Amino acid sequence: MIKPSILPGFIELLPEDQLIFEKLKEIIEENYKKAGFTPIDTPVLEKKEVLLAKGGGETEKQVYELSKGKTDMAMRFDLTVPLARYVAQHYSELSFPFRRYHIAKVYRGERNQKGRYREFYQCDIDIVGDEDLHYSNDAEIVSIIYRVFQDLGLKDITIHLNHRKILSGFFDFLGIQKHTDVLRSLDKMDKIGWEEVEKLLEDLDLDQEQIAELKKFVSIQGSNHEILDYLSSLAQESPAYQEAVEEFKEIVDLLRSYGVDEKSIQIDTKISRGLDYYTGLVFETTLNGHEQIGSVCSGGRYDHLAQHYSNKNLPGVGMSIGLSRLFYQLKAENLLKIEFASAAKVLVLPMEGYLQDGIELVEVLRKGGISSFVYSEKPKMKKMFKYADSIKVPYVVILGEEEAKKKEYALRNMESGKQELLSRDGLVEFLK
Amino acid sequence: MIKPSILPGFIELLPEDQLIFEKLKEIIEENYKKAGFTPIDTPVLEKKEVLLAKGGGETEKQVYELSKGKTDMAMRFDLTVPLARYVAQHYSELSFPFRRYHIAKVYRGERNQKGRYREFYQCDIDIVGDEDLHYSNDAEIVSIIYRVFQDLGLKDITIHLNHRKILSGFFDFLGIQKHTDVLRSLDKMDKIGWEEVEKLLEDLDLDQEQIAELKKFVSIQGSNHEILDYLSSLAQESPAYQEAVEEFKEIVDLLRSYGVDEKSIQIDTKISRGLDYYTGLVFETTLNGHEQIGSVCSGGRYDHLAQHYSNKNLPGVGMSIGLSRLFYQLKAENLLKIEFASAAKVLVLPMEGYLQDGIELVEVLRKGGISSFVYSEKPKMKKMFKYADSIKVPYVVILGEEEAKKKEYALRNMESGKQELLSRDGLVEFLK
Repeated sequence: MIKPSILPGFIELLPEDQLIFEKLKEIIEENYKKAGFTPIDTPVLEKKEVLLAKGGGETEKQVYELSKGKTDMAMRFDLTVPLARYVAQHYSELSFPFRRYHIAKVYRGERNQKGRYREFYQCDIDIVGDEDLHYSNDAEIVSIIYRVFQDLGLKDITIHLNHRKILSGFFDFLGIQKHTDVLRSLDKMDKIGWEEVEKLLEDLDLDQEQIAELKKFVSIQGSNHEILDYLSSLAQESPAYQEAVEEFKEIVDLLRSYGVDEKSIQIDTKISRGLDYYTGLVFETTLNGHEQIGSVCSGGRYDHLAQHYSNKNLPGVGMSIGLSRLFYQLKAENLLKIEFASAAKVLVLPMEGYLQDGIELVEVLRKGGISSFVYSEKPKMKKMFKYADSIKVPYVVILGEEEAKKKEYALRNMESGKQELLSRDGLVEFLK
Repeated sequence: MIKPSILPGFIELLPEDQLIFEKLKEIIEENYKKAGFTPIDTPVLEKKEVLLAKGGGETEKQVYELSKGKTDMAMRFDLTVPLARYVAQHYSELSFPFRRYHIAKVYRGERNQKGRYREFYQCDIDIVGDEDLHYSNDAEIVSIIYRVFQDLGLKDITIHLNHRKILSGFFDFLGIQKHTDVLRSLDKMDKIGWEEVEKLLEDLDLDQEQIAELKKFVSIQGSNHEILDYLSSLAQESPAYQEAVEEFKEIVDLLRSYGVDEKSIQIDTKISRGLDYYTGLVFETTLNGHEQIGSVCSGGRYDHLAQHYSNKNLPGVGMSIGLSRLFYQLKAENLLKIEFASAAKVLVLPMEGYLQDGIELVEVLRKGGISSFVYSEKPKMKKMFKYADSIKVPYVVILGEEEAKKKEYALRNMESGKQELLSRDGLVEFLK
């Protein structure tokens, strides 16, 4: 006999939590569907050389690799690389803009720590253009984040926006060349504070004027309107910078058209996200009052989705929700707003000799779209009710001689204890 | 640059097929849910010693194994072993009968051949009892197969039923001891014919009378009623055999209560399924007129689900649909009855300068539950309609000056070419 257990860093849920998790997943998927995104489903295992085409970085060390015969394989560590591979491979069979969603597990052999899993769900949407992709798509992606979190009952969020072209335009304007290094330094501000960042910038040979300008830039505070006006006032001699600010303004305008509440949006000149990947709008999402959780949904605009697989110029914009981690965090912070609903709405409890009648009743309920089943084991009242309690079914029907004869059933609300006397059709009607 | 491709034996679908595949998956899941089954979601990767606790067999050779540090891992090759592990591990936190469904990918390094995949979906339901489990559950599982295939539009099916206790009772009655070997020989009848089977049985030292009785037994033909009567007439001196026949009769009766059409059921004394696993009712499903496909859904009753992980006696009954293979076969045989539906129901095509109005219209549609999006790229009429055609969207709305002013929109049916002039609310109403 072997002790049943799962791998460290992996997770599985008990039925009650699983049902809530599924509900979250469903809400996310419904929003992706409503926006007309198409699902794709790529293999978990891919050719190692394909999955690691980009090479290098922290991720590669965390990849689960395996071999069978002469084939080197790897488990996907995100859904973006498989998307890039998919779009490049099937380019001629896809329609662009290609709008896809993908909700699936990914694998990373991360250090084992609370709330970090080695197998976890990502819920991604991306819109990929062929050569061009209008910035209205950036606004749409942000609006979908907004809708998803509204529907998850997490209405008090802030979506932080920034624009990489504004950053790079401003760096250029200041005569700063080492963009990536400077971004990496600025990115650390929340963690190490400005004084330490300043030292890093000095190490990068920035002069005091450049550093002062940068400090002013990343410290901009105010309403979105005020920040945008301030951004406009900078670097007026740089057309690239000014163009980026204009685009940013228009994206913010389109967010209004997409029904995003202005209060949920905050322009934040500090954020930059994936340093060597994003090229335009970038965003992160925090739960107000729970900022220590970090970003619960991030993404942005990128210029070269499939550069490792194709010569085509395929710009895109997308976002990802790390659902496993989000679920863990919402639970830990007592923020799960989704109510638990039992897998079955009705449990039919037949007395001795009335199993067949119970089954027939269940068939009527199921045909009416009511999830239900019949208690099949020895009909001991106490045991049956204990079972009903343990699965938290909201309604039971006790079925004995009288009910079978009259075809009238007492539907018992398990929480209130109240009973309704109903016909078969009446049951379906009432429960719908 | 690396050529984008996936591993041999793996599969991924283009959007159109993916949407149909998702629909199939949804129909299956809806039926599982309606019957009050609870979803579980176990890790794809498990400890090797746990997953291979049973050991031996063809499966083990096909398992994808990997190691990271000192940990030996394996990818699941079915959903039954993880269920056994889950139930044993969480025994004290589960309610029995435990009714779970699991729709997920499994991995087998099979020989690469048409329609056989190394990564494929299984859609499983099982009901697991604690110590006991009434045979009405067996009938319920069969009824769910029936409902699923009805809803998949595959109404012309035969579910072949047999009962392992009838087989073993009859073998005992005949004084045959090597049950498994005899079953293995009988199982080959369809492939190699009776004459060859007879030779195998002789090799197992069965005498001519035993062989003659077996031949009669596996050749029984007739209606279910006739076969059951005939089975009753055999081995009357064996209480174990007679009890099994009685149970079989009652299961067939309960199938009627569950609304299963008698015509879809065929008792078949030849079938036995997984030799060392099933212990009671067993079943396979064939599509009438397409029997060469083989069984599209099988399962049965087993006595010891978790014997490798627990001392508990956990009998169960379950079934599995191999969805990836089924999808391939239905497509190949032109049996896909599910109509393709585009990811978006409406595509809004804004004229130059009316993108914002388009977005606002899309927001109204989405709020009304209509999947839709706005064409975001340069509004060239020909290109827009080409895109609409390629994604096979059923409706488009062209939005220009007049529409924006009057807030009245021409909804164009892309197939018929017909147009309806509708208000915003009218659009939602019409499309619902």
